[in-house]
Amino acid sequence: MPEEKPVRGETALIAALHRRFGPPPPGVALGIGDDCAALDAGGEDFLLWTVDTLVEGVHFDLAYFSLPQLGRKALAVNLSDIAAMGGVPLYALLSLGWPRHRDTAGALALGEGLAQAGQEYGVAVIGGDTVSSPGGVLLTLTLLGRVPREEMLTRQGARVGEGIYVTGVLGEAAAGLEMLKRGLALEGELHQALSQAHLDPRPQLQAGRVLAREKLATALIDLSDGVATDLGHLCRMSGVGARVPAATAPVSPRVQAAAPALGVDPLDLALKGGEDYQLLFTAPAAQASALLAAFARAGLPPPLPLGEIITGPGVWLETAAGEKDIAGQGFDHFRLDL
Amino acid sequence: MPEEKPVRGETALIAALHRRFGPPPPGVALGIGDDCAALDAGGEDFLLWTVDTLVEGVHFDLAYFSLPQLGRKALAVNLSDIAAMGGVPLYALLSLGWPRHRDTAGALALGEGLAQAGQEYGVAVIGGDTVSSPGGVLLTLTLLGRVPREEMLTRQGARVGEGIYVTGVLGEAAAGLEMLKRGLALEGELHQALSQAHLDPRPQLQAGRVLAREKLATALIDLSDGVATDLGHLCRMSGVGARVPAATAPVSPRVQAAAPALGVDPLDLALKGGEDYQLLFTAPAAQASALLAAFARAGLPPPLPLGEIITGPGVWLETAAGEKDIAGQGFDHFRLDL
Repeated sequence: MPEEKPVRGETALIAALHRRFGPPPPGVALGIGDDCAALDAGGEDFLLWTVDTLVEGVHFDLAYFSLPQLGRKALAVNLSDIAAMGGVPLYALLSLGWPRHRDTAGALALGEGLAQAGQEYGVAVIGGDTVSSPGGVLLTLTLLGRVPREEMLTRQGARVGEGIYVTGVLGEAAAGLEMLKRGLALEGELHQALSQAHLDPRPQLQAGRVLAREKLATALIDLSDGVATDLGHLCRMSGVGARVPAATAPVSPRVQAAAPALGVDPLDLALKGGEDYQLLFTAPAAQASALLAAFARAGLPPPLPLGEIITGPGVWLETAAGEKDIAGQGFDHFRLDL
Repeated sequence: MPEEKPVRGETALIAALHRRFGPPPPGVALGIGDDCAALDAGGEDFLLWTVDTLVEGVHFDLAYFSLPQLGRKALAVNLSDIAAMGGVPLYALLSLGWPRHRDTAGALALGEGLAQAGQEYGVAVIGGDTVSSPGGVLLTLTLLGRVPREEMLTRQGARVGEGIYVTGVLGEAAAGLEMLKRGLALEGELHQALSQAHLDPRPQLQAGRVLAREKLATALIDLSDGVATDLGHLCRMSGVGARVPAATAPVSPRVQAAAPALGVDPLDLALKGGEDYQLLFTAPAAQASALLAAFARAGLPPPLPLGEIITGPGVWLETAAGEKDIAGQGFDHFRLDL
């Protein structure tokens, strides 16, 4: 094993593991370092493959998640990885770790939520495994999907001068989590919407397909860890940087409204909070009107401008006080951060 | 949700989840209830897909597992599921839950063991995910493999009158676990072999391929939960029963030798202990000599007779004291058992 500097943070750990696993073999169109792996079996489509684990006490708290909601969310976060490649989901396997002290009726309720979400999104749960857990509930889903090989979008491909867009306003999931963690009660609609944003995120599968099918994006990622971290990944993989003007950042009005009660900076939640599960993508400026038209045709809300791709590295937040690089500064609530 | 009796035990839980997930859609050759799911993408091969989670304190104890051994074993137990379909492994994704208090150097050591085992078995680790774990180490692997569609073996297909075979002697992994858990020191070679059986099981990929390619078996399963449980699964899925004469059961001589020190019945360890990761299969009596010849040609040790398929249900252990049904009586050390 070669000498190596100590590894700090999830990105560095994944990179160090990557070096151990070596380059992907033939038949693998895309290995470690994107939202999904992509397999090339010679057909018209690449096969997309992803895995994600949710751990009680890290990713969710059963004080405010119902078990059906949890099954549903586990599917959503995996579906978001398929959306981030421009793909269509196909099948799922569930690996469920269940605490001995919990009634198995709860496992069935979780399965019911997962099954219903599967029907809604056209994903069949076709197998899996249950194990005993000495701690809390553990929930791993692995999904397969497909994407026409000419359409697949990755984290690579953003070019200097292109616009950066997101498929929806930012920060609601992070605000919802803060609210739920602290047990705050906000005004009715606001409370409901922010809770839902954390408890029941909607993977942007349709937007991903529009971008892929109509070849409107040059690079694509989903917002699981926050703009600062995820745009940082996209920039690093594309070999570019990004400029994000604070004044025009698409912060959710609900986050603005909740910020005083939460005592947080809404811009921080929007750019550094995670789990919005919106898509973030880059597109040439010349495509801007085609982009709006395609989203409108698909019945989707218009993509929102976030900034511009510049010479790298860095994700430069522009405020009245000047510029600072926020790359990798997502709150990383849920991730490994050592 | 329809009224349902309370669910007890892992098999019942999986069956109840299965009802919620519904029948597999077109394109799925085999859904829940076998060692792998099998996908039919229209080519010559079915795609095999499996997922397994190992949980610290349930499936392994880092008091006697090194982290590279753990990475290696996680791959082995998943490979055994591919072997149990007669398949060839292709790719793996890792989802690693790492405790905040552990140095990431340990995660890299685990990755190193996994990478080395992957090279040995021809499996590329092509992606994955790391998360923080509030408890111990969590390790999920999902594997894809392939099997020619005409060759795939499942848990279904055993017929009355056929012989039941295993690919090696039984009980060593369970004896090794007992020995390690109690911190017993046995005589050198015995200690080493029993430790290895628990710490470093060898998936029977080559035997699975011989059985599949030469169409020698009618049904196949791997021994993860013990003969009593796994032969029980095979019988239930095939709609048959089994007769297992105690006097001729292929109990490992090492287990016989260690039994007095462990204070256990060697037959119990062999039939109810888990994790041997040998293959168990059924074959017509008329094939017995072809079977031996094929294993010899492949340089594999001869399959060992375990019993006979009879009219079901049940897995009937025949002793001097009479017959009893041991179906589902595996120790289930590691599984969910409520």
